[in-house]
Amino acid sequence: MSNFGFRDLRLVQPFEASFREARSAVGASEILAAAREYASVAEAVGDCSLVVGTTSGARRHLQHDLKPLDQATVIIRRRSQKGRVAVLFGSEKRGLSNEDFSHCHWLMRIPTLEEHGSMNLGQAVAVCVYELSCPPRKGAAKAKPASLKPKHDKDWAAKQADVERITTLLLQLLSTSGYLEPESPVAASEEKVRRMVLRLELSAADAEIWLGMLRQILWKLNQPSKVS
Amino acid sequence: MSNFGFRDLRLVQPFEASFREARSAVGASEILAAAREYASVAEAVGDCSLVVGTTSGARRHLQHDLKPLDQATVIIRRRSQKGRVAVLFGSEKRGLSNEDFSHCHWLMRIPTLEEHGSMNLGQAVAVCVYELSCPPRKGAAKAKPASLKPKHDKDWAAKQADVERITTLLLQLLSTSGYLEPESPVAASEEKVRRMVLRLELSAADAEIWLGMLRQILWKLNQPSKVS
Repeated sequence: MSNFGFRDLRLVQPFEASFREARSAVGASEILAAAREYASVAEAVGDCSLVVGTTSGARRHLQHDLKPLDQATVIIRRRSQKGRVAVLFGSEKRGLSNEDFSHCHWLMRIPTLEEHGSMNLGQAVAVCVYELSCPPRKGAAKAKPASLKPKHDKDWAAKQADVERITTLLLQLLSTSGYLEPESPVAASEEKVRRMVLRLELSAADAEIWLGMLRQILWKLNQPSKVS
Repeated sequence: MSNFGFRDLRLVQPFEASFREARSAVGASEILAAAREYASVAEAVGDCSLVVGTTSGARRHLQHDLKPLDQATVIIRRRSQKGRVAVLFGSEKRGLSNEDFSHCHWLMRIPTLEEHGSMNLGQAVAVCVYELSCPPRKGAAKAKPASLKPKHDKDWAAKQADVERITTLLLQLLSTSGYLEPESPVAASEEKVRRMVLRLELSAADAEIWLGMLRQILWKLNQPSKVS
């Protein structure tokens, strides 16, 4: 990250002993010293308006759009002019979970030979930040820097924290209203609803409106019913 | 390497214990199992017709052309149609020595932020093989695959082993003829002459001719002078 100019490292539930050791090591980078810890992916990406997950497998992601790294880079570069973009990596051993993926707008993959399993985490990160710092490739869609800078606040993409708030409100509504059956698994519903809200690609302004509407509906739903 | 389709790993004087351990580890890749060991850089690159060194520093290479990775990739891709290309990496701790560099036609560098020292070796290799396996970038010089395939044997670039033979013969000639003063440091002369021969970019056919000429001159030079 340091080599390619990326500075904002965020860790979700790092293994404390290793993290403390790495941080206090001689010659530890400024990035590691400034890295922030979070209890959940949702909190870590709260101020981001695009969250891109990384994966080594091409097969198991029917629910997400999967783009090769170079195409993903074109979009990330463009979107980073409209808000903060997060690139999410899983742990060395297990990668990202389905719950982790449900926080992602879409996924990207380093094009490697199919037969050769997943890359080492440090090498995968190095390749990604290298590509993200490189000039565009031939044939890649052209970004139009001038016209893409949002002119009005309402053009900014919604932050992930608002997406999460809308998801939570919707879930409460669906549960309270009886749309979700009480015995349905909570995590699965949550992941489905989160992906659905992500697909809306709300602007920041629209996210505000939706939050207001959903809060009002929930308030109304929770009023004791009149005895008529 | 395995992830990006590169299979020919060659090691110069590897630390035996580590190498044996890595090789026999569970899940060790085929590449590691098939890796070959060499006693010198010259032997390792003997059958190559282009040798590209890697370096993290931009400053200390006055004697070599230094290209950024994406430009280097364009040339490597083109040249790999005319003969085998070697990409040479130094050890994690010390990188490549001047003697190592003297075997290189030119050097390449991953464009990183100046202030952030050198990259981890494994990450640097990952970034290089990734770029070498990628489609060309915008603005990169176009390779012309059809016209670049050599039509005649004489169009093939000389192998590095022949370059090394010519270097050795020239050094003997320069020494025997008194061009090199006896007290001049052997290693420095050798590196200078090797670089000079590399710059000739001889074809395989021309290398043969040069070898013949130099051998003949050396034979003549070593004849006892006639007493007249």
